Amino acid sequence: MNLSAQPDPALITPCLLLECGRMQRNIDRFSQRMHALGVALRPHIKTAKSIDVVRKMIAPQPGYSGLTVSTLAEADYCFANGMNDLLYAVVIAPGKLTAVAQRLQQGMQLSLVLDNLASARQVVDAGKRLNVNFRILIEIDADGQRAGVRADDPDLIEIAQRLDTNHSTLAGVMTHMGGSYQCRNRPCLIEAAAAEHAAVIGACDRLTQAGFDCPIVSLGSTPSARFAEDMSDVTEVRIGTYVFMDLVMAGLGVCALDDIAISVLTEVIGHRSRRGELLIDAGWMALSRDRGTAKHAVDQGYGLVCDAQGQVLNDLIVRSADQEHGIVADRNGRPVSFGQFPIGCRLRILPNHACATAAQHSGYWLLNEPSTSAKWWPRMAGWA
Amino acid sequence: MNLSAQPDPALITPCLLLECGRMQRNIDRFSQRMHALGVALRPHIKTAKSIDVVRKMIAPQPGYSGLTVSTLAEADYCFANGMNDLLYAVVIAPGKLTAVAQRLQQGMQLSLVLDNLASARQVVDAGKRLNVNFRILIEIDADGQRAGVRADDPDLIEIAQRLDTNHSTLAGVMTHMGGSYQCRNRPCLIEAAAAEHAAVIGACDRLTQAGFDCPIVSLGSTPSARFAEDMSDVTEVRIGTYVFMDLVMAGLGVCALDDIAISVLTEVIGHRSRRGELLIDAGWMALSRDRGTAKHAVDQGYGLVCDAQGQVLNDLIVRSADQEHGIVADRNGRPVSFGQFPIGCRLRILPNHACATAAQHSGYWLLNEPSTSAKWWPRMAGWA
Repeated sequence: MNLSAQPDPALITPCLLLECGRMQRNIDRFSQRMHALGVALRPHIKTAKSIDVVRKMIAPQPGYSGLTVSTLAEADYCFANGMNDLLYAVVIAPGKLTAVAQRLQQGMQLSLVLDNLASARQVVDAGKRLNVNFRILIEIDADGQRAGVRADDPDLIEIAQRLDTNHSTLAGVMTHMGGSYQCRNRPCLIEAAAAEHAAVIGACDRLTQAGFDCPIVSLGSTPSARFAEDMSDVTEVRIGTYVFMDLVMAGLGVCALDDIAISVLTEVIGHRSRRGELLIDAGWMALSRDRGTAKHAVDQGYGLVCDAQGQVLNDLIVRSADQEHGIVADRNGRPVSFGQFPIGCRLRILPNHACATAAQHSGYWLLNEPSTSAKWWPRMAGWA
Repeated sequence: MNLSAQPDPALITPCLLLECGRMQRNIDRFSQRMHALGVALRPHIKTAKSIDVVRKMIAPQPGYSGLTVSTLAEADYCFANGMNDLLYAVVIAPGKLTAVAQRLQQGMQLSLVLDNLASARQVVDAGKRLNVNFRILIEIDADGQRAGVRADDPDLIEIAQRLDTNHSTLAGVMTHMGGSYQCRNRPCLIEAAAAEHAAVIGACDRLTQAGFDCPIVSLGSTPSARFAEDMSDVTEVRIGTYVFMDLVMAGLGVCALDDIAISVLTEVIGHRSRRGELLIDAGWMALSRDRGTAKHAVDQGYGLVCDAQGQVLNDLIVRSADQEHGIVADRNGRPVSFGQFPIGCRLRILPNHACATAAQHSGYWLLNEPSTSAKWWPRMAGWA
């Protein structure tokens, strides 16, 4: 059993803990797997939003420092910290093109994504007006879930044609297999990974046959990356959640519970004697409102409860959450032992969704991090 | 129809807008109502977490500046901004008593809340050890939802006895009618307000009969405050959501849609042609994961869509949300007009839950605020 160190009793609860040994194991595992599959790993910073964590994520690939971002603020943060091979992996809002152009003129190497003719037209017009060259990946829809043009859509070639100007450069194709989050077993995940691969390779082949260069072939989601068996002709994988893992990933079979590297430290503040439940000082402000396991075989409520050392207390979940209050209950309805959990004792809550829970905090309190004397790593936030 | 001003087109989306005219109307309405009922209004800063908003909230009661906080960080923020009659309205975690004592020694006037004998013992012990006098309100359980000792529980008197020391002072009783959020009609809300009143007055009467002073009788929730008909013997009402309002409040009949003062500005970034849906650049990171209207008669998804001027587009809701993507759909399944909402056009999203949505942002972009030349007001965040 991989127990964590005891968090500092002086910490004011609730706060976010990062078990760095677990994080390093997640980083190593995915880096080794992508290396074995012959593909670069372009970490997505949206989960951690921490340059200290990002430095750990890029360490296994010396000489490569490509990163994925989901906001312009994340791009600015990476650039300010000396990282400058950036892919902004949300289809570009035309209203942000002026801000992007300013960054390109300051030397930022930022690639954009789009999936439709109207955006392509606006990108080209803005490139002319602002006298820059936007580097563009076309987003491919692999699952019908969100954004992207389908690999067999006639618009794909037309978008490429429209981008063939002095003010825009087609750099390749990318996709995101969000549909993998809806899988509930290994065969579904293997199939999702194969479908993701087929979609992006199919799109690249069509573009190449139509005479366009397609140097970048990019895909990614933590579940599909975990179960991918074939990355042939893919140039990079974009993943972020793998660094921390969470209960959604554990529910999908992507990780084990003791791979989950972040947790919220909380304190028991009351005993609900009529219900046999604990009141804790971590509500949705600390845990987030994410209920990502609600439709899983095992519903973890607002999070799975561990003792202060990180040992999972398998039957205890956060049943409900107000802003600064949580209620811990036994998932089978048995009364919780008040003797075992006196008022003032501390617990840790594993998150449903690492991205959402971490976003509620300004930084990470470190456990088991040998490389630094720092006790806390800050996070960035916001959009502009 | 109360339309808002047009937000600055230079704003980077997503961002949080505050329509100050609506906010002022909400402040005036609740202040006048509490004044008519003869009770002080102790604003809760947890919704706005902004000293600029708090100054508006306390303005209608010259000479009174009592505030409610939900974290020690909020208390520090108020104190640093010269406000020093503070009630920390979450039952105290024993692990925070040393931090509270430090603040008392620095001159902060901070009252605490507790609801059980074990916490009372720890408060008294800490008061002795740290040589301070903790000022305590006993939390009364009016609805069985969260914290509190019931007004008829023998522990109530025993807690008061235990607090009768040189290191703790019983200052009164308080309750929070969270159960009012589960009402779906006006009679239920009126009944909830009456039950809240009865619980806290009953507890105060028992304490008084047992020989204890009970100078403060405090209650509050925005829905019960809106429908309360009797505040006799109550000294203060604690409410926060009223300042901004939200779709949950509108769904309960506590406000109208055009009372909702905050919204998230977003941009259309794609057309999902097979589904007749819009892709927007506001996901759950900007909107929060709160689905507070999920069980209402009208489920508003992740938020109700307005045009950029704030005019409600009644049939359009945010159907689903990823981290930085939202999908806007017609609630009746009709295809959304892409001609009416071209890529690059801007929309506003009204929030399910003002506290949760505002917490995803670092501040407010102001619309229609005549008292300042500022364009943006910052928010505070965190716990320590």
